[in-house]
Amino acid sequence: MLISELSARTGVSVATLKFYLREGLLMPGTTLSATRSDYDEEHVRRVGVARALTDVVGLSVQQAREIFRLFGAPRAELFESLGLAMAQLPPAGAPEADDYPRARAVLEHLGWLYDPRYAAVPQLEQALTAAESAGLPLSDARLDVYAPGIRSIAEYDVAQVPDDPERAIEYSVLGTALYEPVLVALRRLAHQDVAAARLGGPST
Amino acid sequence: MLISELSARTGVSVATLKFYLREGLLMPGTTLSATRSDYDEEHVRRVGVARALTDVVGLSVQQAREIFRLFGAPRAELFESLGLAMAQLPPAGAPEADDYPRARAVLEHLGWLYDPRYAAVPQLEQALTAAESAGLPLSDARLDVYAPGIRSIAEYDVAQVPDDPERAIEYSVLGTALYEPVLVALRRLAHQDVAAARLGGPST
Repeated sequence: MLISELSARTGVSVATLKFYLREGLLMPGTTLSATRSDYDEEHVRRVGVARALTDVVGLSVQQAREIFRLFGAPRAELFESLGLAMAQLPPAGAPEADDYPRARAVLEHLGWLYDPRYAAVPQLEQALTAAESAGLPLSDARLDVYAPGIRSIAEYDVAQVPDDPERAIEYSVLGTALYEPVLVALRRLAHQDVAAARLGGPST
Repeated sequence: MLISELSARTGVSVATLKFYLREGLLMPGTTLSATRSDYDEEHVRRVGVARALTDVVGLSVQQAREIFRLFGAPRAELFESLGLAMAQLPPAGAPEADDYPRARAVLEHLGWLYDPRYAAVPQLEQALTAAESAGLPLSDARLDVYAPGIRSIAEYDVAQVPDDPERAIEYSVLGTALYEPVLVALRRLAHQDVAAARLGGPST
């Protein structure tokens, strides 16, 4: 299909598609003439993912490009590439260190992998430090409730990841970023539902 | 204690304490003379909460003041006041509407309270819309895994809320805001732990 049809199919303007091409978020089509190229279904999918990463997840073009670069990783490097792709996701700005003692203590308590190079480790350290400095440190009792609830969710998530390495990274990055706000909103709504019963709010 | 001692106890500068007093985040002390006031343990606590809301949670002074205003709500209005306090928390910017069809369908499916005036409802609608537009709409199968995991966490959260209405609002707002980043980081770490087993990453 021509770029005009790719635009019609994806709902993304030709100007934005040309921007994606220039910035390396969309791979070139097959050249038909000096001014015309042919695009296929793979381009339609890629435009959808590029738009999701930039518009919905809010990544910079540079972060999205880094994720697309990792799509080509061979299967043997999939685990490491996944970690690098995830590191592009917000929140940014967690301090870098060789060791993250609060996060390490939590992960050792749970028996989960502790790899300080994985971006979620400094993020957990930062969240634990913030809770502590606000006078509400995470207790072991709370952790022992949170961890199994979250782990059951994560096990389902990982089971849904496609086998194809390229699709696996795409799915993992989008699924992590898109379903986090769903989970956060669901927790607040569960709070409300539970509190309504306890405090006599409006009934369902 | 004098303001200098309140500063030493809380680690917050006298200039910031005066700012809190001026902006209504900290209640006045007992006047001792034209230039000196006496502060007590309640002030120490309030400074800690004010700092957590502004520095850690990232609220504006106006949002923090609105939450403090709700601390005085009578017990009969606690459920409603809790909802108003929660509405000050990020994320902001979810569109206002009379009805949120995607969020309503999810809450009806779960049998949870649906109250479109509660801020988490438009937040859920926005998250569901984003996932849909990125080509990963939330399936019922996924919802049926996410909801019980999140609900077990929320039930624990609500059980920890103190009985005193003032403390209840403070605890609920801080606990909601501070433990969300912990849960998000834990989910990413659970992903990594589960994926390491599946993909042959580094072992624990």
